[in-house]
Parts: sequence; C-alpha cells; structure tokens
Amino acid sequence: MAFLKVVALEKALEVIDSFPLKPAVEDVPLEESLGRVLAGNVLSPVDVPPFDRATVDGYALRAEDTFMASESEPVKLKVIDEVNAGDTPDFELNPGESVYISTGAPLPKGADAVIQFEDVEREGNEVILSKPAYPGLGVMKAGTDIPKGELLLRGGTRLGFKETALLSAVGFSEVPVFRKPRVAVISTGSELVLPGEELKPGRIYDINGRAITDAIREIGGEALFLGIARDDRESLKALIERGVECCDIVVLSGGASGGIRDLTSSIIKELGEVKVHGIAIQPGKPTIIGLINGKPVFGLPGYPTSCLTNFTLLVAPLLRRLLGRESETRNVRKKLTHKVFSVKGRRQFLPVRIEGAKAVPILKGSGAVTSFIDADGFIEIPENVEILEAGEEVEVTFFG
Amino acid sequence: MAFLKVVALEKALEVIDSFPLKPAVEDVPLEESLGRVLAGNVLSPVDVPPFDRATVDGYALRAEDTFMASESEPVKLKVIDEVNAGDTPDFELNPGESVYISTGAPLPKGADAVIQFEDVEREGNEVILSKPAYPGLGVMKAGTDIPKGELLLRGGTRLGFKETALLSAVGFSEVPVFRKPRVAVISTGSELVLPGEELKPGRIYDINGRAITDAIREIGGEALFLGIARDDRESLKALIERGVECCDIVVLSGGASGGIRDLTSSIIKELGEVKVHGIAIQPGKPTIIGLINGKPVFGLPGYPTSCLTNFTLLVAPLLRRLLGRESETRNVRKKLTHKVFSVKGRRQFLPVRIEGAKAVPILKGSGAVTSFIDADGFIEIPENVEILEAGEEVEVTFFG
Repeated sequence: MAFLKVVALEKALEVIDSFPLKPAVEDVPLEESLGRVLAGNVLSPVDVPPFDRATVDGYALRAEDTFMASESEPVKLKVIDEVNAGDTPDFELNPGESVYISTGAPLPKGADAVIQFEDVEREGNEVILSKPAYPGLGVMKAGTDIPKGELLLRGGTRLGFKETALLSAVGFSEVPVFRKPRVAVISTGSELVLPGEELKPGRIYDINGRAITDAIREIGGEALFLGIARDDRESLKALIERGVECCDIVVLSGGASGGIRDLTSSIIKELGEVKVHGIAIQPGKPTIIGLINGKPVFGLPGYPTSCLTNFTLLVAPLLRRLLGRESETRNVRKKLTHKVFSVKGRRQFLPVRIEGAKAVPILKGSGAVTSFIDADGFIEIPENVEILEAGEEVEVTFFG
Repeated sequence: MAFLKVVALEKALEVIDSFPLKPAVEDVPLEESLGRVLAGNVLSPVDVPPFDRATVDGYALRAEDTFMASESEPVKLKVIDEVNAGDTPDFELNPGESVYISTGAPLPKGADAVIQFEDVEREGNEVILSKPAYPGLGVMKAGTDIPKGELLLRGGTRLGFKETALLSAVGFSEVPVFRKPRVAVISTGSELVLPGEELKPGRIYDINGRAITDAIREIGGEALFLGIARDDRESLKALIERGVECCDIVVLSGGASGGIRDLTSSIIKELGEVKVHGIAIQPGKPTIIGLINGKPVFGLPGYPTSCLTNFTLLVAPLLRRLLGRESETRNVRKKLTHKVFSVKGRRQFLPVRIEGAKAVPILKGSGAVTSFIDADGFIEIPENVEILEAGEEVEVTFFG
C-alpha cells in the first residue's frame, strides 16, 4: 500500500495498523514495575495468608474446651507456650491447653480459636475464660484473603502502588510487562535552536521536539530526542538513519517550510517507502507516514498544535497498542460554549479547553504556541458540517 | 510538644506541621523536568515569535504598493531575493519590490504583509497581484504569541508535556522545581520475607514496604526501601539510623505484633524524641510519630489497609507540602451504597470503592490485603456518628 495522494484519516490508520510492530513482553523486577502495564493475567501462586493466622494478641485454644465457660463457672486452660509472628510452632495443643499467641502468628495444631487477652484473666500459667470462644474466633484461615490460583490482576492493568503491593503480597519478584516502545524524535527546520543555545536573529526555540518527547514518556514509551535537522539533506538523512537504527519508531516534526517536507519524503523514499503523503484533515495535510526496515517513520506538521493533533491521532494510538493500553478512554463529552465555523468539505480538528462540563474552542490559529498550551484536546468537525452551535454536545479527545 | 497518650488526629497533624522541614528548590535540566513541580512563577524572557514572521509560503511586500491592485489592473512587483526560515535578511524592501518568503522566515525591513503564492502569479522575476494585501496579512508580529515578561506558568504547576514544551518555546534549558523529598521505608516484623525469598512456614510476604515505597514515588517523592527489620532491637535500630542518615523522612510499617511497636518507640526515644504515640482514630491507635536529628520518623500500623490509611492521613500531606502540591484535590463526594455502622466515640476511617457516583463500603476487615486492593480510598465516620445511611453523601479521600 502506498498513497501518494492525500488519503482519509481512516486509511492512514489502516496503514499504521498494517505495520509489522507487535507488543513485546519483558520481565522487570517488581521494584521497577510501578507505572508499567501487565502483559498477561496474574494468578496467585500462594494462599494468603499461607497458614491459619491469629488476628489478635491473645490465647490460642481448642474452642470446644470453652463451650461451657460462663461468669459463674469459668474455664481454666493451661498456658503451655508462646507463639510469636514468624515462629513455626511444632507442637500440638491437647485438650485443656492453650498458648499465648501474638497477632500474625500461626496457630499451633489443634487450636481453632484465639481469644484476645483483654477478654480473659491470666493467673500464673493458667488463663481463665468466663465466656466461650467459637471456632474461627480471632483467626484468619489460610487462603481466605487470597486463595491460591485466584485471578489477581488482568493483563493490561497499569501497575499503581496498590497493584505492586498486591504482587508483593503473593511473592512475585519479577513481573511480565509490555516493553516500552523506543521512539526517536527529530525536529526539522533551519530556524530552530535548542533552549540554552543562543537565539540568533531569524531563529526560534524548538517546541515540538520537547512536546513529542515528553508526550511519548507520559504515554509510557521511551523517547530519545536526537536533535534538530536543518534543511540540508545529509544531516536529516543521518538523523533518520540513526533513528531507524536505535529505535522502533521515528517521529519527525516538520519545519515550517514546505522544502523540508519534500526533503523528508525524498529521504524516506530513498531509505524505504513513503506509505502516506498527506491526510485529508485540517491540520494534517503535510503529514507523511513511511516505513524503513520495518520501522514506521512519521513526519508531522511543524506548527505545534498541528503537530500535537497529528501525534494524538496517529502516533499515540500505535504507542498505546504496543503498551497494551489501547482500551484507555481518551475522550469526554462536553458542551460547546461558542459557535464555531468550518468549511464544507474540510474535516477539521479544533483545539478546545475543558472547563467543567464545557468545551471552550481555542481560535488563535495553529501557528500560535499558546493555542495548544491553552487547550486540553480537540474536537472534530466532520466534512459535511459547516457550523457547530453553542451548546451542542461534542466529543473532546485529549492531547497525547 | 510530646504526647505520650493517644491524641486527636488534628493534634498529630499540628505536630507534623511543626517539624523543621521546608520545601527545597533545585534546578533540573528541562529534559528531566517532566512530572516535576515548578518552584516559582515563570515569566517569558523573550518575545515569541522573536521577530515578525511569515505564516505562509509566498511573497513579502509593502502592503501600500498593492492597495490599487484589481483583476483589471493588476500590480506587478519585482522579486529581488528569497528568504527562508532561519535566514536573516539584511536588506530593506524599496517601493515596488518583494521577496519570495517561506513560512517561519523573518520579514525583511520595509515589508509588512505576505501574500501566499497560490494567490498570485509569477512571471520571471516579477510577481503579479490582482487584489490588494493589507498590512499584517500572512504575518505573525513579534511577541503576539507570547510577549516578553508575560506570566507563563505559576509556581506549583506540575510539568506535563505541554508545560515542558512551553518552557522550551521560550528557551529555558533549566527549570527550578521542588526537590523530591527522600524517604526511607522500613518494614518491621519477624514474620516478613521479601518476594523472591523462600516462604518458610509461619512467614508471609511483605506488603507495606512495596505499597509505601511506590505510593511515595507516585506522589513524586524519592523512596528508598531499606528492607525488613525483624523483632530484634539491633537490626531495627541500625535500619532507623541508616534511614535518618540517608533521608529526610523515615517511614516504618509495623509488624503485626505489639512487641515491635514498643521496640520502635523505645529506639526513637533513644535516638530522638517520640512526639505522638497513638492517634484517636480507627485504624491508627498504634501509630507513632517521632523526630530524630530534625527528621520525622513515622511508625505506621502493620495491617495493609490501616498502614495505607495512616500514610494517606499523615505522611502524604507532608510529602505534598514539600513538593508544592498541597493544593491538589484528593477528595470526591459520592453517595454511599450501603448502610454502615460505627461505634459511638470511635472516629473511624472506612475503605470504600468508587463506582460512578457511588461509594461502596469495603467491609472485609483491615487484616485482609484485598480490602485495600478493592478500595480507592476511605470515608470518615465521626466520633458522634453511629450509622451512615445508604444514599447519604460522603467525602471519599483517595489513598496515597
């Protein structure tokens, strides 16, 4: 498939879907798994707790010994030992016997209840009960919290601190997660300089390199910013080759001029194949999608808002798919605050800011940096729509 | 201030507030600032764009030269040069002259409009206009996007990719952010083993160490898990001393037994001062707050849900204050799905799961791991309340 004319967005997404990239899995140490996405269902390999466990500090006993206990005729049990958390009692309780036990300690054989020490009296090596204990009192049975074999977490779960704690609770020291896709990011344009460099006349600071690099990181990918390619074939080609070598995906953001777009497209053609050149959306006409050595190369528009919109529409879904996060909701329904206009036959994506239940259109024009800073995402105005009225319900897609 | 009896939660929070910890500021490279919190307001040091800039590919000209242009009497201008993005034109346009200019390039002196190439005809070294251009057409004036001196971002802003991109746009290569507080995390209890270790009889896997370490990281702090202290004075003391040495804050989670609590308190007393021993909340009675060499030491309860609840109530707010994130909302109002009971005179925090607009109480008991896994946060049942009815509005505080 190669489209050298402007194609529909759906066609471009089909092209991306057809690329030979698959989610990959790696095992990471549990202590480095925070924020990663589980690559498969996790079943508990153990019972939690792994043994019948005292839930209070008190006396472990045989409940049947206490059934007749009352205020008037208390029952006396011999205290034969002490069991603390971490101990492994290797004896068995005989009728009439009890042990002092601390919270979390395993019950000795024969014991089936723990009465807390506040509810009894101790006299020498005897404990005195004036009410009965029932079997199971003060005890958490093995496996009642998490039975062995239970489904703990589903594949696709993002691991927050509750999830890593749960994995710790059942003893996993390593976790299978989706590998982070590595993305090379390149800014193009002779007018660009990096922050910290001198701003000579005619130059501006790069924006897209930072925006795309950090957006990829927020999604969960690994981003390598390779720097700025000026409008010169050799430097741009060298950076694209480096990107294809070190990474799974290459994302370029276009310089402002049309010249560099042609350069990008000609270099991709030389090294691989241009699959899409131009998408029938506004903004997005200049977007290029290519494939070099089986690795997708995206050439996004230069204006920051256009760049970020196309990144959100094209690159972010691919990253989420590789990270097992494609089911995450990235849209909300809001009511438009102002009437907006489009041109018939143009499929437009318009930046909006969310304020409570409302979506406020940002109409600064895509050349303004501040339009994407002020916006939370964008709405789509379909080809056959010329006007969206104030108050109309719209679907907002978050940037990133 | 030292409270050796159970104190109100508010008193405990006052004690924590009185500790000699202040938010600290550090400069980090912009490319490492994602997710950090700005330590002060940021004003733009430059105009964006820094010069009058073409917003289309076309011809820069003096608008007044074209005012008389019409279909019947087109105006012809001489094309004297070409200006590309990144160039610095050092000439001035004279009346009757124009230059070819590409998007993003600076306008030469004298030019005040750019007409896009699709709207004109080119003949040799002349460009032919059949309609007038007005001053400002096709031009973004210097500073119209972001004027120099404008407030860009307020202190306390968490830097997402939009914010780092904005800082890049105005040329910051370093950013002042709040330093991450360093927190030492210690698990205590002879029954505990770490995931990956052999689960001998009577032992259970540590949960709180992982939960607290990763909760601190999610909040934005730096957490160092120092390991497990068994119920032996020397090993616990050594870990607490190491924690105080390497970190700003030490957080212990208690073993299940009461013995280790007394040990913790006695070691804090030896090395510093116990400020709070027991808080009048359920769960939270066993919580210890101390100060060693000016560094707060928290001893949290051992049951995972109790531990996480007390972490959320006591430690997390301190971390957020040090990170400049204290204003972030951590509560939502929801409707309770089931009637819940408490004991008069007991101020209780009950785990709940959020389902849409509803809060579902989790009534498994604090000993269960699964109660905090199933819960999103907790609600408070005040001392003077014995029953919360189904349908009642409650405030849910998120864990962490």
